[in-house]
Amino acid sequence: MHGEIIAIGDELVAGRVRNTTSSFAAGQLFQAGYRLDCITTIGDDAGAIKTSLLTAVGRSAFVIVTGGLGPTSDDMTSEAVAAALGRGLVLNKEVLKKIEAEKGRWGGTPGRMLEKLAILPDGAEFLNPDGRAAGYLIIERGVFIFCLPGVPDELEYLFMNQVIPRLNNAFGSRFAARQRTFKTFGLQETEINALLEWRIRDMEWIKIGYYPSFPEVFITISMMDPDNGAADRRFASACSTIEAALAENLIGADEDTQESMVGKLLLEKGATLAVAESCTGGLLAHRITSVAGSSLWFERGVVSYSNRSKEEMLGVLLETIANFGAVSRNTGIEMADGAKRIAGSTYSIAVTGFAGPGGGTPHDPVGTVYIAIGAPESTFCQRFSFQGSRCAIQTMSAETALDWLRRYLKYDADIYSH
Amino acid sequence: MHGEIIAIGDELVAGRVRNTTSSFAAGQLFQAGYRLDCITTIGDDAGAIKTSLLTAVGRSAFVIVTGGLGPTSDDMTSEAVAAALGRGLVLNKEVLKKIEAEKGRWGGTPGRMLEKLAILPDGAEFLNPDGRAAGYLIIERGVFIFCLPGVPDELEYLFMNQVIPRLNNAFGSRFAARQRTFKTFGLQETEINALLEWRIRDMEWIKIGYYPSFPEVFITISMMDPDNGAADRRFASACSTIEAALAENLIGADEDTQESMVGKLLLEKGATLAVAESCTGGLLAHRITSVAGSSLWFERGVVSYSNRSKEEMLGVLLETIANFGAVSRNTGIEMADGAKRIAGSTYSIAVTGFAGPGGGTPHDPVGTVYIAIGAPESTFCQRFSFQGSRCAIQTMSAETALDWLRRYLKYDADIYSH
Repeated sequence: MHGEIIAIGDELVAGRVRNTTSSFAAGQLFQAGYRLDCITTIGDDAGAIKTSLLTAVGRSAFVIVTGGLGPTSDDMTSEAVAAALGRGLVLNKEVLKKIEAEKGRWGGTPGRMLEKLAILPDGAEFLNPDGRAAGYLIIERGVFIFCLPGVPDELEYLFMNQVIPRLNNAFGSRFAARQRTFKTFGLQETEINALLEWRIRDMEWIKIGYYPSFPEVFITISMMDPDNGAADRRFASACSTIEAALAENLIGADEDTQESMVGKLLLEKGATLAVAESCTGGLLAHRITSVAGSSLWFERGVVSYSNRSKEEMLGVLLETIANFGAVSRNTGIEMADGAKRIAGSTYSIAVTGFAGPGGGTPHDPVGTVYIAIGAPESTFCQRFSFQGSRCAIQTMSAETALDWLRRYLKYDADIYSH
Repeated sequence: MHGEIIAIGDELVAGRVRNTTSSFAAGQLFQAGYRLDCITTIGDDAGAIKTSLLTAVGRSAFVIVTGGLGPTSDDMTSEAVAAALGRGLVLNKEVLKKIEAEKGRWGGTPGRMLEKLAILPDGAEFLNPDGRAAGYLIIERGVFIFCLPGVPDELEYLFMNQVIPRLNNAFGSRFAARQRTFKTFGLQETEINALLEWRIRDMEWIKIGYYPSFPEVFITISMMDPDNGAADRRFASACSTIEAALAENLIGADEDTQESMVGKLLLEKGATLAVAESCTGGLLAHRITSVAGSSLWFERGVVSYSNRSKEEMLGVLLETIANFGAVSRNTGIEMADGAKRIAGSTYSIAVTGFAGPGGGTPHDPVGTVYIAIGAPESTFCQRFSFQGSRCAIQTMSAETALDWLRRYLKYDADIYSH
């Protein structure tokens, strides 16, 4: 069953706002077994809305229109959709009453703006009239036209609770989509392609894609097959072939992240972690604590930005900093040892480096980062040279540190190299 | 001068990857004075590429085609573009030689894949043949067709260094785009609309948009006018009207962020900051240290995830935690005082709360967060109730903490309320 999305908003074609809602909708449609042929992004322009909508209605079974449904003066989708379909605009008094009854949720929004939310094209069916997220459905010559707000959480709510169930009722996909995203770190896109290509050559039933998602590379496989055991076995076989080929470069699949895998491995060992950060400035701790339940294995973090804080909080010797510098192997080791000692944790990670744009020395220019892992057996430290902006260097530092600990915990590798 | 973008990739229509490159390109085009009518996103499908390209060539002065130019087996844009335009494919030996000379940059990529990068539609002009980012330009019946890689940094490089200069040479826009994005926190989109609408009613020369960008709301104004002083004055007048109306809810404009504004205000006072984080887990320190030069005003951060770390690192009394809980006004105050004391900083921020999904008590459910500001005069603490996922609660907590400190530093407000 083929469909398309029309995303409306001057902010989208002027590049002021990223079109994340279309990506969300596209992903959900794919997983529910529907095929999306096209996403058309246009401005708040009645003519463009009309052209796109009529083209879409002429060739697709369903159309998702997003954006421009709000109460503010730049919102004009309902008017344009009504005009394109030759329908009038009607004030739905029942909905208006509900909106006005919950004025509190709308803060200081004037009544005239609230009224706008209840004016829809003739024949439209309100989706979720009781909630704040107000979208609607029009069926035009058998084509389902869903008009949805562009605000991410409102769209997501309506998509999951209204759009997908109604599409399933109307079109009931007989095919099941299977899809998995493998996340890797340490190999280039082309290296992975070369590694996998000959192994999956005969599996013509899967579709494979390679997507750099800095600093990781994702590999996605998908298949659209009847919902039965044979298809499941084929899919599982493709997955294990890919997993074996990627080996230790594989972080995990789908919702897995470096930090969630580190947490899983620590929990299996009954071990805990502390971190000491200089140039990553809290990014490492933030990634770790974004994992629900991380308090079971994460003890504490220190963002030792000043030299004094490295001494006072981690016990790094001022002589070490004076002799070798705050960005050095010796300081990295003492930071990792200090974090492990003060936290009483099993493992620790320390990061010290020059993230730029200022700082750095001729010998250790911006991008030089020392990463240390404190383990029960010993403390290891390596020097890395990263490239790019401050943000890119911070991102690569945190990623490399988590990746190293993940490999160390999983493969007992005491040397990290790629 | 009107143009459009055709973004190609199965990963885009299946929602696996967000189309950030189109947003980037759209923003740059707008700022250079070009008008983008449409962004069409389609899969790796020769038929869809042909239809979209021919439609675009028939109605636009320029077309930006992105994605599908890489060396891996799923990349097929060059073939499809050549077929759509009735052109052959030609191996450019000079370019191939350059690519092969720099094999090192391509890691373990096989030669056969590198060759693919040098095969282009007949008549295409290579853009940047010496670099890794290889796009090309085809001029078809006077229409400029730029084919660019979908990888963000490669596209961005070519866009700024090739596409915009070549469009300017060919079409030389006489109009200058002026655009500013105001960032606010503390008001709803509709409240801002109501606040601004009557004030800018007579300024029909500007275009205004309202965009929630959780947890902030952005207001963008733009105008496309001749490049002269009168237009500059009109734009400046609109900006100051909006700034005055938004008052303390205005964080800043364009590149400004809560953290950069806090840094600016601290530097003006010659003051420093330390943070103590529990439920935000490093997010606050990460946002602060993402500001270049933050080492001038940020002294240290503590991610005191365990109770023991709150006691050992910040001097929070174990009795306080036992009597009032780790998530309480008293603990928040002691964390802020402790951070200020150990760091010797002028100001401090402390955050302790339940980010979920687990945790919380009947009286303080998930979403309850205490934020404390340590100032030279006194230490203040407020209780907040946030909603949503773990990530949403962490985001709101960090944003609210930074916003409070920004207002406190700027307006000497000792009570924070909105």
